Amino acid sequence: MTDALTTKPFRWPVRVYWEDTDAGGIVFYANYLKFFERARTEWLRHLGVGQQRLREEVGGMFVVTDTALRYHRPARLDDLLVVTAAITESGRASITIAQTASLQGLDGRPDTLLCEGSIRIGWVDAADLRPQRLPPAIRLALGLT
Amino acid sequence: MTDALTTKPFRWPVRVYWEDTDAGGIVFYANYLKFFERARTEWLRHLGVGQQRLREEVGGMFVVTDTALRYHRPARLDDLLVVTAAITESGRASITIAQTASLQGLDGRPDTLLCEGSIRIGWVDAADLRPQRLPPAIRLALGLT
Amino acid sequence: MTDALTTKPFRWPVRVYWEDTDAGGIVFYANYLKFFERARTEWLRHLGVGQQRLREEVGGMFVVTDTALRYHRPARLDDLLVVTAAITESGRASITIAQTASLQGLDGRPDTLLCEGSIRIGWVDAADLRPQRLPPAIRLALGLT
Amino acid sequence: MTDALTTKPFRWPVRVYWEDTDAGGIVFYANYLKFFERARTEWLRHLGVGQQRLREEVGGMFVVTDTALRYHRPARLDDLLVVTAAITESGRASITIAQTASLQGLDGRPDTLLCEGSIRIGWVDAADLRPQRLPPAIRLALGLT
Repeated sequence: MTDALTTKPFRWPVRVYWEDTDAGGIVFYANYLKFFERARTEWLRHLGVGQQRLREEVGGMFVVTDTALRYHRPARLDDLLVVTAAITESGRASITIAQTASLQGLDGRPDTLLCEGSIRIGWVDAADLRPQRLPPAIRLALGLT
Repeated sequence: MTDALTTKPFRWPVRVYWEDTDAGGIVFYANYLKFFERARTEWLRHLGVGQQRLREEVGGMFVVTDTALRYHRPARLDDLLVVTAAITESGRASITIAQTASLQGLDGRPDTLLCEGSIRIGWVDAADLRPQRLPPAIRLALGLT
Repeated sequence: MTDALTTKPFRWPVRVYWEDTDAGGIVFYANYLKFFERARTEWLRHLGVGQQRLREEVGGMFVVTDTALRYHRPARLDDLLVVTAAITESGRASITIAQTASLQGLDGRPDTLLCEGSIRIGWVDAADLRPQRLPPAIRLALGLT
Repeated sequence: MTDALTTKPFRWPVRVYWEDTDAGGIVFYANYLKFFERARTEWLRHLGVGQQRLREEVGGMFVVTDTALRYHRPARLDDLLVVTAAITESGRASITIAQTASLQGLDGRPDTLLCEGSIRIGWVDAADLRPQRLPPAIRLALGLT
């Protein structure tokens, strides 16, 4: 039986542009939250979960409730990163996703971990932002039983 | 007679933080649009125009329709800038605002112009984003006859 | 004979994520400058021009000196945009690039223009930011004679 | 005896602009890291620690090594926030700072906590980004013994 907690992490490439860097010559640390979200969004899309559509049809949306990031090494302009996403926990109204950003290894060399973190997202009513149970369609798409 | 086209430009201080810089060691050029908007927002607030409130009460909002910026000199981390805003044109549904960002001169020395531009904003219905005539309350606050 | 001024524009896909939107429910206008730069960077990379490498090897970099954008229609969360870049003018130390962002047409329908603009970039010494003549390697890569 | 661990948190006002919001109508969660950094920077400046100057004179800079944020309630356009910063731990090459962002209470009412977190920053050589002992001038300014 396959389920979300045992499958391989989803992988998404992210290129570093000028907009991502700061005067330290490296990627501004807050931007890893953006990279992580792009990967989560593409992972959801890959599983058939369109956020804009869900908001229009179900009136709900994901909000981030907790983030915890650890920065190991810096990324620089033009670097090609690989960002992963994998569910580590799920509740009635929220899921927790483990994410990493690594420098893609060239010529068969392994990737180099740059940043890793944990993001907890909750499902809320789009109008009043109150927590709601995850819609069955999302639970199904995510492989949550 | 006082009117918007003859009064002194509004001035607003903006400090440069890490978030504003890029790997060139200078302020990322797109961020001057943010600095300009902060000054426009504070200038509107100063004139009694609250955008969030207007959206709730009148159902309209400003959208930017044209921007033109020229970059003269770079700003760097920790620099203290002065951003100005002054109306240069107004129509039924839009106004054009001249803006500058300068490095604040210390000890009585003059400011140094870093970036100047022109921003055209239109008033739209918040729901369908269609152009609307500027509400009388805004015309009055801006000194437009 | 092919040259930069006659070839088709370079095209680069850009997906709209949460980070790109604002409380108006649409893409924040300043972010089109980021989208345009991603396309310029990928276009340069496609032509063999790596900016980080050039900075290390030649000690120079591009800086943006002028931007002019016109916003036609808004983009929204999850939209897939196509961003183009094509040289329209070139001088000794600068080039001007025409750019557009369009909503990608589905099922063979045409793209819908959302934003168009003109970006002038100059080549400068990375240390003192003074204008420099465009290096021959870049002129060659860009098809400038 | 006064020291950094017992003094009141530093407070810094942050206004919410369009640039800070997302299509959910609220402040984009990654931007609290920016708000927190603005407050840390102003707190350091208040203590006499100028980051740009330190980088030029000492060749070192702070880098963020860990962030952990919890989001309690959303902030919206035009909200006036109060951001705090206070040291909770210090080591040879790093310090940990507890930070909060709250909606400023009007008319004497208490502030409402929106987001709280912990940021660990390390002192590194600006050239190779290797960890360095905190310079005595910084330890002194921060009240670390």
